[in-house]
Amino acid sequence: MTTVSDLIDLFETEAAADHPPDETPDVGVIMGSDSDLDVMAGAHDALTDLGFTELTDYDDPPTGYTFESWVVSAHRTPTLMDAYARTAAARGLDVIIAGAGGKSADLPNMTASLAYPIPVVGVPVQEKSVPSVIGMPTGAPITAVDAGKSYNAGLAAAQFLATDDPTLADRLRDLQAARQEGVADVSARLHSQGTDSLRSPQN
Amino acid sequence: MTTVSDLIDLFETEAAADHPPDETPDVGVIMGSDSDLDVMAGAHDALTDLGFTELTDYDDPPTGYTFESWVVSAHRTPTLMDAYARTAAARGLDVIIAGAGGKSADLPNMTASLAYPIPVVGVPVQEKSVPSVIGMPTGAPITAVDAGKSYNAGLAAAQFLATDDPTLADRLRDLQAARQEGVADVSARLHSQGTDSLRSPQN
Amino acid sequence: MTTVSDLIDLFETEAAADHPPDETPDVGVIMGSDSDLDVMAGAHDALTDLGFTELTDYDDPPTGYTFESWVVSAHRTPTLMDAYARTAAARGLDVIIAGAGGKSADLPNMTASLAYPIPVVGVPVQEKSVPSVIGMPTGAPITAVDAGKSYNAGLAAAQFLATDDPTLADRLRDLQAARQEGVADVSARLHSQGTDSLRSPQN
Amino acid sequence: MTTVSDLIDLFETEAAADHPPDETPDVGVIMGSDSDLDVMAGAHDALTDLGFTELTDYDDPPTGYTFESWVVSAHRTPTLMDAYARTAAARGLDVIIAGAGGKSADLPNMTASLAYPIPVVGVPVQEKSVPSVIGMPTGAPITAVDAGKSYNAGLAAAQFLATDDPTLADRLRDLQAARQEGVADVSARLHSQGTDSLRSPQN
Amino acid sequence: MTTVSDLIDLFETEAAADHPPDETPDVGVIMGSDSDLDVMAGAHDALTDLGFTELTDYDDPPTGYTFESWVVSAHRTPTLMDAYARTAAARGLDVIIAGAGGKSADLPNMTASLAYPIPVVGVPVQEKSVPSVIGMPTGAPITAVDAGKSYNAGLAAAQFLATDDPTLADRLRDLQAARQEGVADVSARLHSQGTDSLRSPQN
Amino acid sequence: MTTVSDLIDLFETEAAADHPPDETPDVGVIMGSDSDLDVMAGAHDALTDLGFTELTDYDDPPTGYTFESWVVSAHRTPTLMDAYARTAAARGLDVIIAGAGGKSADLPNMTASLAYPIPVVGVPVQEKSVPSVIGMPTGAPITAVDAGKSYNAGLAAAQFLATDDPTLADRLRDLQAARQEGVADVSARLHSQGTDSLRSPQN
Amino acid sequence: MTTVSDLIDLFETEAAADHPPDETPDVGVIMGSDSDLDVMAGAHDALTDLGFTELTDYDDPPTGYTFESWVVSAHRTPTLMDAYARTAAARGLDVIIAGAGGKSADLPNMTASLAYPIPVVGVPVQEKSVPSVIGMPTGAPITAVDAGKSYNAGLAAAQFLATDDPTLADRLRDLQAARQEGVADVSARLHSQGTDSLRSPQN
Amino acid sequence: MTTVSDLIDLFETEAAADHPPDETPDVGVIMGSDSDLDVMAGAHDALTDLGFTELTDYDDPPTGYTFESWVVSAHRTPTLMDAYARTAAARGLDVIIAGAGGKSADLPNMTASLAYPIPVVGVPVQEKSVPSVIGMPTGAPITAVDAGKSYNAGLAAAQFLATDDPTLADRLRDLQAARQEGVADVSARLHSQGTDSLRSPQN
Repeated sequence: MTTVSDLIDLFETEAAADHPPDETPDVGVIMGSDSDLDVMAGAHDALTDLGFTELTDYDDPPTGYTFESWVVSAHRTPTLMDAYARTAAARGLDVIIAGAGGKSADLPNMTASLAYPIPVVGVPVQEKSVPSVIGMPTGAPITAVDAGKSYNAGLAAAQFLATDDPTLADRLRDLQAARQEGVADVSARLHSQGTDSLRSPQN
Repeated sequence: MTTVSDLIDLFETEAAADHPPDETPDVGVIMGSDSDLDVMAGAHDALTDLGFTELTDYDDPPTGYTFESWVVSAHRTPTLMDAYARTAAARGLDVIIAGAGGKSADLPNMTASLAYPIPVVGVPVQEKSVPSVIGMPTGAPITAVDAGKSYNAGLAAAQFLATDDPTLADRLRDLQAARQEGVADVSARLHSQGTDSLRSPQN
Repeated sequence: MTTVSDLIDLFETEAAADHPPDETPDVGVIMGSDSDLDVMAGAHDALTDLGFTELTDYDDPPTGYTFESWVVSAHRTPTLMDAYARTAAARGLDVIIAGAGGKSADLPNMTASLAYPIPVVGVPVQEKSVPSVIGMPTGAPITAVDAGKSYNAGLAAAQFLATDDPTLADRLRDLQAARQEGVADVSARLHSQGTDSLRSPQN
Repeated sequence: MTTVSDLIDLFETEAAADHPPDETPDVGVIMGSDSDLDVMAGAHDALTDLGFTELTDYDDPPTGYTFESWVVSAHRTPTLMDAYARTAAARGLDVIIAGAGGKSADLPNMTASLAYPIPVVGVPVQEKSVPSVIGMPTGAPITAVDAGKSYNAGLAAAQFLATDDPTLADRLRDLQAARQEGVADVSARLHSQGTDSLRSPQN
Repeated sequence: MTTVSDLIDLFETEAAADHPPDETPDVGVIMGSDSDLDVMAGAHDALTDLGFTELTDYDDPPTGYTFESWVVSAHRTPTLMDAYARTAAARGLDVIIAGAGGKSADLPNMTASLAYPIPVVGVPVQEKSVPSVIGMPTGAPITAVDAGKSYNAGLAAAQFLATDDPTLADRLRDLQAARQEGVADVSARLHSQGTDSLRSPQN
Repeated sequence: MTTVSDLIDLFETEAAADHPPDETPDVGVIMGSDSDLDVMAGAHDALTDLGFTELTDYDDPPTGYTFESWVVSAHRTPTLMDAYARTAAARGLDVIIAGAGGKSADLPNMTASLAYPIPVVGVPVQEKSVPSVIGMPTGAPITAVDAGKSYNAGLAAAQFLATDDPTLADRLRDLQAARQEGVADVSARLHSQGTDSLRSPQN
Repeated sequence: MTTVSDLIDLFETEAAADHPPDETPDVGVIMGSDSDLDVMAGAHDALTDLGFTELTDYDDPPTGYTFESWVVSAHRTPTLMDAYARTAAARGLDVIIAGAGGKSADLPNMTASLAYPIPVVGVPVQEKSVPSVIGMPTGAPITAVDAGKSYNAGLAAAQFLATDDPTLADRLRDLQAARQEGVADVSARLHSQGTDSLRSPQN
Repeated sequence: MTTVSDLIDLFETEAAADHPPDETPDVGVIMGSDSDLDVMAGAHDALTDLGFTELTDYDDPPTGYTFESWVVSAHRTPTLMDAYARTAAARGLDVIIAGAGGKSADLPNMTASLAYPIPVVGVPVQEKSVPSVIGMPTGAPITAVDAGKSYNAGLAAAQFLATDDPTLADRLRDLQAARQEGVADVSARLHSQGTDSLRSPQN
């Protein structure tokens, strides 16, 4: 059984360890509850599509771009959130993706305040979480994607890193090119085969 | 068959009986309709988790912290609501949890006005009930939890009682500690096993 | 010039001082910004109407019921919020009234999580703050008043304390009685003088 | 100074007095606060336009159609509301117009439940009062006009009475005819004089 | 096959026929589409519970209180709506219940304007229909029930008629009394058997 | 004084007159109230910018593209609306622009149903009028512009006419070109002069 | 496999080909994603009901009224949207129906700006797409139908073309006449058979 | 007078010029209208507070961190928007801040699609612009700040650049530290002077 104290100790220890940058995760993905995992898995998918690897063992980090995943609850485990966010820079994170649901989706905002100036991409897990995630006061920045769009949060995190990384920028362009061919293809089929052949069968 | 008059008589009788405090319910849980029961059962669950017992027979009350449950409709049985709320203090109640659904969720508000100064925790049974429950005018206080969060209403009722009761405060802390360990445990598993191992199977 | 560190030190010192209960504030009133003060002053007014005195000097506390006021920003001074809330119980507070504006009104919620099991009355300073203040997940309770109703928050805080304090309960009843006479009086005037004599002059 | 008890006594006394129908008010106009008076005065205006007289002295009622006006607060004076509504039928009222503001606009609903089967026209004093006024559960009827449309509530009350009163129906038709001529006249002027001659001066 | 012209002719013929009042329907129930029938059937149920009979043949009307039902679409059959509403008074109707769905639920409003001064109870068939049904301008009254509450519309229509009909008023009171006993009975069972025995089985 | 009957007679007379197309108005602009005139004047402005002339006297029509303006209330003058819309085609109108305010903005919809198949551009005069204007059921078409955008309604009416009129299409293009130069010019000034020189003075 | 470049080339080639008007599509139907097809197929159905044929091969166009269908994504294939809209006039299109879902439903708006002065009928594919589709600034016109009402968009496109085409106007009238008979028929059945015989079976 | 073509030519020329990175703007600030300038000036203020200089002459760029400002309208000048966004990378921009108002705030989204993979911070200029700015589909990323929070957009743009720039990260920390002292100071004053001394004078 792992306790909140165990995890706080782990974050403090890692922060003090002064690992070289290529051994620390580039992106941290956190969510307020394990029930958010299916929605937040889009960040995993986008980062994986861009060649990132999930770092699951601090003592045995993979090479290349990496990210890590944690459940951190603002309201149920406030001290865990505090430790995660305050130690983020020292643990080598460059960008954090934070998702939360409900109407008081405080995790992204509080993490943005505590981990500042590391940029945090807020992911409202539900539609009703959007106002709470986006509504930060002047002087306390966060930027957010739309409700449930964790895949876009993964792309955005990579875009932030790519401002000085042409390799990553190229990967982002390649991913977009593949997506565009898919649209063109279905468009050509709709036009040449006609609406009735592609629509769902009518009852 | 029980009638509204029977219940009004019962409340008046109990109010006049002058039972000693340890034989009267500490918390009253009321709801506007029996169709609200599944939503409101969270109050029962929280109070039970904290060691409260449901009092079902005024002549044979359990020992320790207790609560009682009633269906009281503001719009269909306004005289029953009036009797329940006006006699609440005399019947020994310290806190009332009142839940109602629909857009005119008047039960919590009217109960708060009639039972004042006993604190009433309003529970909007549906999302659309929130404005009606929370929107009391200045001078007529109510405090409310979020839609459907009757479990939190049970915790809040206990928090009010715990302001002068260290034993109850400790029970509240113990319950929170157990909850936090659950978060820490799933968080550690997500991190070490990775997103793909915990997410739902994809179609 | 006072710094955030100065205030954190002050809260830690007071928490360690172990003052007797009658020298510590009963109610803490906090708000996210000094621009919230006019809205939040209603809590001051209600508590003052009930005979509470504002405690402004920890070394020279007034006698009787007391409250204190602070500006604490969740997003701009997260460490100050953390210190205020974590030390609240040790500093002798029994109830906290926390108000915040905007769409990410996290101060009441985070304070409720950190100061638990002390009950926190959330005050949404603006209408758009209501969802964020009220929307806590199961297991992390808060109760809230309506937007801007800090006067009612003051009454509610007193109601919580009055569950075991007949003197305070009587003060609450007296305040209500005075309010009711005002309604009866204007009602009698409207009826006997007619609508035209009391309505605003028409253009 | 008039007290709530004075007014409750008055309503009980009038109910017991068994006045002949032509000496009692046909329509009761009540509102939750004197601050609602300017919005609610439209009911007075519509009824006056239809030839109703405001009854201001139970001992000296005017002849013909009459109405009365009172301030009754559901949340601040619940016992006054109860007395007003329960005695309404015995006091000779045929229709009640009830207006209230805020998000918990309970006065119309509770009055409809307590005065049943007398029809109650609910007037939401503010836009945000609409859901609370209209949202009654099945079995507890109310009908409502739009926010602030107390003039229409006055017309509607007369429509209810006119279902068996051809004189009143004719008055309603005459009032509409006058209104229609106003529309026709401004329409003819717009068409013949052109948009530029009737629009507001542009800056 | 019946055409719109057939129905318009029928309404004009009936209006000219000058039937005695006890042979014409007291209440007209109209709806914008046959897809609204299940929602609008509540009006049928309430009127039936009060002893009304559905009139289905103008040449063979039932005795006692009666109502009739029609599908009339404001947007698809505007001339049919016009004929129905303009002839309503001459055809002997005293109250109309009109339901429509969608965001442009014009049927109740247009019928209220055309059938004036006959009172029209608007029934928004969907939640999104409420603003359109209730939002009439000053001088053009309608009163409405909540979305889908056609049962209450049936009760309200009877309340309008009962302002001068003690027999109908008594039927309304009897119906309410039966409903209240149901609430009292389930309330007594909840209290004495406890929450766990009445709640739905938990998974 | 002009009456509703006068106007209905006028519309019927004009419909029967069989004027040649170049003597009848191309576009009809109607609004529910003269209080809507300032919002609806944008249609006048757009049409005037495109070279249309307002036709104010049926016996002395201007040459070239023309439009006419009327006040027509769906709820206060339903028979006038009916006459205007039913005779529109016979009176030579090609497009109707109809604006209405409030939450029951029925004028555009009912006009679209009655004047069909003439296209009607609905103009919601207020934000809250949008759902009512746009929400027509399948089979009863209307198209609408955004709240208050009557200028765009004027452009759209011209676009409909321009589908077979290259001259009018060119005028639409010229108007757009002029608008674009305005944007380019202010853009160049912002870039070269800098933000501080163009922003409003700060207090 | 078709690429975005292939389609852009196709549109440019067609624009340069200068086909005679009776060989080019009259109406273009575009949508942001193939997942919108079932909602957008209503445009196909309305146009087909009016005798239009879907043009699926530019080299072998059908005779009579025609329309074409394409998938064009504003956000995923912005250059494809640009090419489609800019070449629309040269390719002979008279009206465009553009549908998009989500909260940033930019396709209809951007197409309206780029294809101007060709009229564009915007179709919000989801309720939440309405504000984005309808909300164009002054000077950049679009008209829109309600969410999901692509059938009405097809009718509206035909109405625009019918302003100078009596044949098409007659087809629109015939389609409406058939629809009205359906309403009259079900109305007659409801009235004569009664509510209970047509409502859904009750459980 | 500058034309849209002039600006498009300028952007193409600059893109071809291949300036060294330290002579090109780091951040581009664009807005849909010059009426958005006062809201968008916050980006200027934040960047200036961090030591950025506004670049107003491509031939004479300032040293150090720079940004540029332009008015670009998605709906009124779509070709200008296209040119600005497509050439952004070649012109050396690293981040774009794009603000737009209204309900169809397409500028940030379309710019994000066209300038990809450059990260775009969307600024909804009005509350009603939030859904349109944030609502991008999967695969087309944007991140956004809250309505009107252009100051935070400026901070966020710097945070993105600071992921690999410790100097800029330090400036961000210094700015936050100054802000926190302001909160602490006013908090200390409120506590020691009391509510009445700091609140606004009451009437």
